[in-house]
Amino acid sequence: MTQNKNNKSATTGTPLLRLIPLGGLGEIGKNMSLLETGNHILIIDAGLMFPTSEMHGIDLVIPDTEYVMDRIDNVRGIILTHGHEDHIGALSYLVEEGLRAPIYGTALTLGLLEGKLREHKLLGEVQLNTITEDDTLDLGPFFVEFFHTSHSFPDSVGVAVQTPAGRVIHTSDYRFDPTPVDGKPTEEDKLRRWGDEGVLLLLADSTNAEKEGTTPSERSLNDMLDNAFQKAQGRILISTFASNLGRVQQVIDAARRDDRRIGAIGRSMVNNIKIAIQLGYLDIKQEELLTAGEMESLPAHEVVIIATGSQGEPTSAMVRMSVNDHRQITLREGDTVILSATPIPGNEELFSRTVDNLFRQGVDVLYHELGDVHVSGHGGREDYRRMLDLVRPRFFVPVHGEYRHLVLHARIAAERGVPKEHIYVIEDGQTLEFGHFKNDNEIEGRLGEQLPVGHVFVDGLGVGDVGNVVLRDRRHLSQDGFLVCVVAIDEVDGEIIYGPEIISRGFVYIRDSEDLISRARDVVETLLKKRVPVQVLENKIRDALTTFTYKEMGRRPMILPLVMEV
Amino acid sequence: MTQNKNNKSATTGTPLLRLIPLGGLGEIGKNMSLLETGNHILIIDAGLMFPTSEMHGIDLVIPDTEYVMDRIDNVRGIILTHGHEDHIGALSYLVEEGLRAPIYGTALTLGLLEGKLREHKLLGEVQLNTITEDDTLDLGPFFVEFFHTSHSFPDSVGVAVQTPAGRVIHTSDYRFDPTPVDGKPTEEDKLRRWGDEGVLLLLADSTNAEKEGTTPSERSLNDMLDNAFQKAQGRILISTFASNLGRVQQVIDAARRDDRRIGAIGRSMVNNIKIAIQLGYLDIKQEELLTAGEMESLPAHEVVIIATGSQGEPTSAMVRMSVNDHRQITLREGDTVILSATPIPGNEELFSRTVDNLFRQGVDVLYHELGDVHVSGHGGREDYRRMLDLVRPRFFVPVHGEYRHLVLHARIAAERGVPKEHIYVIEDGQTLEFGHFKNDNEIEGRLGEQLPVGHVFVDGLGVGDVGNVVLRDRRHLSQDGFLVCVVAIDEVDGEIIYGPEIISRGFVYIRDSEDLISRARDVVETLLKKRVPVQVLENKIRDALTTFTYKEMGRRPMILPLVMEV
Repeated sequence: MTQNKNNKSATTGTPLLRLIPLGGLGEIGKNMSLLETGNHILIIDAGLMFPTSEMHGIDLVIPDTEYVMDRIDNVRGIILTHGHEDHIGALSYLVEEGLRAPIYGTALTLGLLEGKLREHKLLGEVQLNTITEDDTLDLGPFFVEFFHTSHSFPDSVGVAVQTPAGRVIHTSDYRFDPTPVDGKPTEEDKLRRWGDEGVLLLLADSTNAEKEGTTPSERSLNDMLDNAFQKAQGRILISTFASNLGRVQQVIDAARRDDRRIGAIGRSMVNNIKIAIQLGYLDIKQEELLTAGEMESLPAHEVVIIATGSQGEPTSAMVRMSVNDHRQITLREGDTVILSATPIPGNEELFSRTVDNLFRQGVDVLYHELGDVHVSGHGGREDYRRMLDLVRPRFFVPVHGEYRHLVLHARIAAERGVPKEHIYVIEDGQTLEFGHFKNDNEIEGRLGEQLPVGHVFVDGLGVGDVGNVVLRDRRHLSQDGFLVCVVAIDEVDGEIIYGPEIISRGFVYIRDSEDLISRARDVVETLLKKRVPVQVLENKIRDALTTFTYKEMGRRPMILPLVMEV
Repeated sequence: MTQNKNNKSATTGTPLLRLIPLGGLGEIGKNMSLLETGNHILIIDAGLMFPTSEMHGIDLVIPDTEYVMDRIDNVRGIILTHGHEDHIGALSYLVEEGLRAPIYGTALTLGLLEGKLREHKLLGEVQLNTITEDDTLDLGPFFVEFFHTSHSFPDSVGVAVQTPAGRVIHTSDYRFDPTPVDGKPTEEDKLRRWGDEGVLLLLADSTNAEKEGTTPSERSLNDMLDNAFQKAQGRILISTFASNLGRVQQVIDAARRDDRRIGAIGRSMVNNIKIAIQLGYLDIKQEELLTAGEMESLPAHEVVIIATGSQGEPTSAMVRMSVNDHRQITLREGDTVILSATPIPGNEELFSRTVDNLFRQGVDVLYHELGDVHVSGHGGREDYRRMLDLVRPRFFVPVHGEYRHLVLHARIAAERGVPKEHIYVIEDGQTLEFGHFKNDNEIEGRLGEQLPVGHVFVDGLGVGDVGNVVLRDRRHLSQDGFLVCVVAIDEVDGEIIYGPEIISRGFVYIRDSEDLISRARDVVETLLKKRVPVQVLENKIRDALTTFTYKEMGRRPMILPLVMEV
């Protein structure tokens, strides 16, 4: 198995196909892969990632798409496998930058995308083409087929692409669920048929590579819901991902079985349900939904409220309710809250704090630590084995995973018979080439160019302007604050005209630290008396204050001197 | 069950006993409880907590001990139940502030405490008294007995205190392990006997209140270790908590069984092992330990390295090795790394990144997601039931837990027969009083005063000076940086003499934003031309720049104007 540190740059032979992974390899999120043949590019997904805790102030992270933008006219199409943010969330930014290639996705995926394009005022700028899993597309040298997959988003698809080098299958997010809520399991027949015909390369989801076995069926949650609903004397409030519309349908059905009515709160939940009803993905009428007033006034045992906030997102409906700060709904003793999700890595603190606060409101809380309130939309290691056995690829690249997930998935591929030298554990930007490099009989693979792809940060209205320097400064400021020292000197005789004045935040509590700040000023005054040449004065002030603050407080605030010659 | 929001202040009757929880109730960490009878105070533990991610720049958190410090002469003794940081880590700070009451703990606990006092140059300032679980203490009105507990620290004890109101039992951290590594299980006989005699109040560890069943025996890890050692062709590197000396002994024993020798790296691991060997807690001689040179030069299959870093702590030995930045040890293909711990809540990201980086070094990694490499030092819900059944307290207060843990533990107490009105789910600072408030026959309990206790932050050399204002500033700075605007005007005619000059960090990348900064200056200049009165000029500048930065970038940097009249 080849890890990308053994990078040997390709020098000879023209590849028939290049795989260019721009996101989702070595990370969970911002999934985006390119297939390239000559002057033709096919994009599979264009997702975003939510920032990790050290990405201070960042709103979103999107893939570095410079490679695509430099070849914008080569793009034959963009395939969206489903409507989750980590698969469609970067697309608006690409369209904003000028990408106009046709987009293909199932109806619900495009329904959600439309909302995003509308927000960016880009609706109508780009062609949206609804497909089903039985459609085929001729996009230049790419012949694209689809297969339905079970996932926590209705109408998810995987992709099979015939290329000049052979067939490439990209599973995207999937699981094998024998009894899915919508009655449509992952299409194994197609996968087996393609496997029989021969598959060059399999790109497969690695999210749950640490989880042995299979993921329990979505349907297994019905019992949990029925039990919880029957046990609850008061209202039921349930949070889940707003895009998990299969789960929403299950909650609707459970409410009906328990003679309850249901309403939704939280912007994305209300919006997604509306779109899903319009497109026929949910079996409920818009007018059946409870209003917020009814949620508060109807007898408690008749009410179910489905709300955003299953991850403890600070502005979500559930979090506002947990601190008794929701405009419309007030939690009461006797209410039962079900958090039907597990915290995403990095979200554990927010999630736990929400559970604590809900308990503080006196409600009963069901969450993943106390029972099976959620199943993953991704398969486990047993699903991976099954996928590999169906597809039997010649080459294998694990995708959608942090590095450890990719390594663990690669090991499974080796166990299932993919030759080790045909397995590539690569990360974003590491290209892979396929062609007749040694002889004409068989297609070979090799590592290609390593593209310099990084994160592109979205911060407010800025896309890509915040980089490592700004983040390093924010981290520094977050640790020890800053101290600006302003002094005005006479440009003729060097006498102090004003200052030294010190402005500081985040370093010490200024109000209780007058003495410390005054001594800091003394340090600078002593320095000024030495008549240090103006050219080096700012550096000297910085050094002196750095020493002073560390000696006094054991802290290293950012120190910024400003010497004005007036 | 009484939650502390139903606080009814006590008005009549003199309590015979007060419970004053200063830390560990409503949080995991900084455990500290006081028992008070008249002018006599007994302290149980004085621990620290590691900061959560939103406590920017904070090194440690310790309990707010103002209540104790105001009554410093009343303290009859300080009982330390074991040597973990969350039980002894705040003591140096208390001694620094003048606390001189005698300290009681087992030999290893005091051995670790000595190191801390030495660091703070306080060794010798306070009396350290070694006890065993069979000792008893007469401390004013408190008669103190101990019971040995199984925990991930050798020689842990719980405490039973006879008070004028009756017996109080504090379990501290514990589990029931039928086959502990040191052969000494939690002393159930004592607990049962006290239960027979009558226990007024039980304070019990709630850390694992979400975990059904019991925690597997420490001994169950022997098989895991033997399997991993035998399978490994190369070196074994294993990380665990440096204070988990039972685990260290298991690793030493497993190394011997597999004909390997062992060495330690990482300051706290090396130190703790040294102290434990000196005090007879580890069955190995100091000179048997491998040097770093031997760890690198001996045949790989003969080497075990026990290292700090099981939580992915940034400066630990394991983390340095994972990024190939350790002074002495370089990881090689063929090495096996075992991370014998589960990430503490909040540490998941650091932990996962370490696993990823280890895989990037080409080593094999065993960690909690892939197998049973760790068992908790805390019991599960079944242990809680057993404790309640042994002690059969009249009153119950769950301790050592976030709010949800306390609620879940309280429910177990109710199931085991403690009357609901005798169960108090309280958080730090909420006092509880016991006495003859209604009649002389029985001791009653009631909520007492709510003390205003908060976190005391240790940041560098400052203890308690950083509070919410500074933290709020640091959070603000971490999100969008700052912008200082300096302008000097003539105090006579109001003409601009200098500026406006803008100093900014963490807001935009200055080098690429000259145009933006120049336009920000224009905004201020336009304002200055309007001849706004000097008294309101700074506010006007702040408003104008706030509007400008939000409109231009969608960001809200901290804006600090400085208008100098020269």
